[in-house]
Amino acid sequence: MLKAPQHQVAGHEAGIGKLGPLVDESGRFYKPLQGDERGANEVAFYSSLSTNSGIPEHIQRFFPTFYGTQLVEASDGSGLLPHLVLEDLALGRVNPSIMDIKIGSRTWAPEASEKYIQKCLKKDQESSSLSLGFRISGLQIYRSKELGFWKPGKKAAQKLSTEEVKLVLRRFVSSNTLNDLDSRPDCAFASTVYGGSTGILSQLLELKSWFEDQTIFHLYSCSILVMFEKELALKGKNPGAQIKLIDFAHVYEGRGVIDHNFLGGLCSLIKFISEILTAPNECRIEASAKADQKNLTADNGVVADHKSHTASDNGVVADQKNLTVSDNGVVVDQKYLTNSDNGVVADQKNLTASNNGIIADLKKLTDSDNGVS
Amino acid sequence: MLKAPQHQVAGHEAGIGKLGPLVDESGRFYKPLQGDERGANEVAFYSSLSTNSGIPEHIQRFFPTFYGTQLVEASDGSGLLPHLVLEDLALGRVNPSIMDIKIGSRTWAPEASEKYIQKCLKKDQESSSLSLGFRISGLQIYRSKELGFWKPGKKAAQKLSTEEVKLVLRRFVSSNTLNDLDSRPDCAFASTVYGGSTGILSQLLELKSWFEDQTIFHLYSCSILVMFEKELALKGKNPGAQIKLIDFAHVYEGRGVIDHNFLGGLCSLIKFISEILTAPNECRIEASAKADQKNLTADNGVVADHKSHTASDNGVVADQKNLTVSDNGVVVDQKYLTNSDNGVVADQKNLTASNNGIIADLKKLTDSDNGVS
Repeated sequence: MLKAPQHQVAGHEAGIGKLGPLVDESGRFYKPLQGDERGANEVAFYSSLSTNSGIPEHIQRFFPTFYGTQLVEASDGSGLLPHLVLEDLALGRVNPSIMDIKIGSRTWAPEASEKYIQKCLKKDQESSSLSLGFRISGLQIYRSKELGFWKPGKKAAQKLSTEEVKLVLRRFVSSNTLNDLDSRPDCAFASTVYGGSTGILSQLLELKSWFEDQTIFHLYSCSILVMFEKELALKGKNPGAQIKLIDFAHVYEGRGVIDHNFLGGLCSLIKFISEILTAPNECRIEASAKADQKNLTADNGVVADHKSHTASDNGVVADQKNLTVSDNGVVVDQKYLTNSDNGVVADQKNLTASNNGIIADLKKLTDSDNGVS
Repeated sequence: MLKAPQHQVAGHEAGIGKLGPLVDESGRFYKPLQGDERGANEVAFYSSLSTNSGIPEHIQRFFPTFYGTQLVEASDGSGLLPHLVLEDLALGRVNPSIMDIKIGSRTWAPEASEKYIQKCLKKDQESSSLSLGFRISGLQIYRSKELGFWKPGKKAAQKLSTEEVKLVLRRFVSSNTLNDLDSRPDCAFASTVYGGSTGILSQLLELKSWFEDQTIFHLYSCSILVMFEKELALKGKNPGAQIKLIDFAHVYEGRGVIDHNFLGGLCSLIKFISEILTAPNECRIEASAKADQKNLTADNGVVADHKSHTASDNGVVADQKNLTVSDNGVVVDQKYLTNSDNGVVADQKNLTASNNGIIADLKKLTDSDNGVS
């Protein structure tokens, strides 16, 4: 008996009239084949994986197991449809915390059509992809039996600012995520989930080594799924920290060149995770936490446990954006900042600006240089 | 007495009616300040460099020494103009071989204006930047006292294909560059110039380590200058292999994020150089060398020692492009390929395709997917 997966954080979701993935009880995940070339591409990629001698065994484990394709009843009731049959990555996991992180500042290949490039470029610009080299496509963080998951809307997740992404990566491994607005992430599970010889960072570094060398594939719009189980971590057990690569509809041949786009984004993510391990008690983001979390409100129906703060989205958050733009020492909207308890952030920005000396001026100059060759 | 530098390979060149850099006899290099914000940006960047505690000493050495700004008589005869005063990187070098490599698949910042982004994107697409993560902005390779330098036109250099860039990186460290058309690069100086504990690769790896960590600057449209002296290498002396970072008109604040764009491109260059050191006698590119070199013809007046092959630019080279597109086993223009002695290349491409198994099909599928989301 096929049913909608419980722990889908990004991509299409199965539902009444909605085409999405399905799972069975034996641990298989059925992903509807996209009717156009994307589906065929993904089949071709998975088919080539297990026999590709260029992918060493310790890297093969980062890809989901592939069981071929199969005609199954589509989730939207439209009848039999071909599906990719993959390993169900959430199988056996109870209340997993999951992040879907799309890697690369560019989600399009140089070979793509101009129309497609412009479409993707816009998405990359509007999300954090262009600035950070990756974007969080979706996530769920387990809080407790009573509260269930914290699961921000997908659109909100993709548009997080740099500081917000840093905050989410901290919240992901924190025990105090019960109250959205007050908590400062304690990063209680950072060392067991991100750290250690089998932790997330170690796995990301293995992947990085391979991407520094491999010239077989260029993976555009591909995600790294990051998972662990908070309840196991709380019991002092192995939390099952694991990464998997998913979504291969836009894979191209490497043709003797490394995937510098994926690698750059991966290194950016690695830097963020490393910083959390180096300074789990780092408080720089504390003051911005309240405002940031307001930005993380639901934009669809999947959030059951999150009070709506959408109304204030254009208040404090907007002010923070102003702050970023005007960080040359002059804080324009000081009154708003004070109102929203962001005084500390303002000071920190000033601090940063004056630490860099002339760099603050540089920023200003650079900003006004945009129209010039 | 100021004069035009002898070894300028990219950027503006000084001449009658042309504004370009100048050098004096004491080892200073005068770069005209661009009148718009780019000039101010570059001054701000250089001014901040020496006092920036975030740049360790072993990284400081990769930047040219900065001596402030000065009003000097412009090279175009337009009178006194402010110039950046920098270290003359070619000082004391006799007949240096030089490459100017612009790093990053993207030469524009996310903060840039839409107009500027589209302009740069086009250049990145037309050059090798987008595909390789870097482009050769200009180069000169010393051949002999009689023949002087091999100095392809700047426009040609920037548009080199992947295989052509690989070839140029080999030619750069080869002794047999006397005859443009016949020689297969022997990579005679690869181990002394690219290799060793003080060689180019080692320096690039130092830079890479720093870029994996530093979040101070994002360097767009910045170049790595690679230099050495062939005559010293021939005499068994230290060839003075050195890299320097230049061109900082488009530097932005890092704001807590690594420069994943620069890092990705740098890793791509490192991979190419590593491959030459691992397999200096690699012959895969031999057959394409003749055709590739035809593409490297002059597009301006600086080349004195290079016979014109421009007439055949649309012949063999064009065919090779077709070959690349059709490398699924079916070589469309076989007759042309045979004519131009590219049979070997065709076979090798087929070999690559069938090594990857289903990947060849994947390419085909992917190509036709361009218009689809």
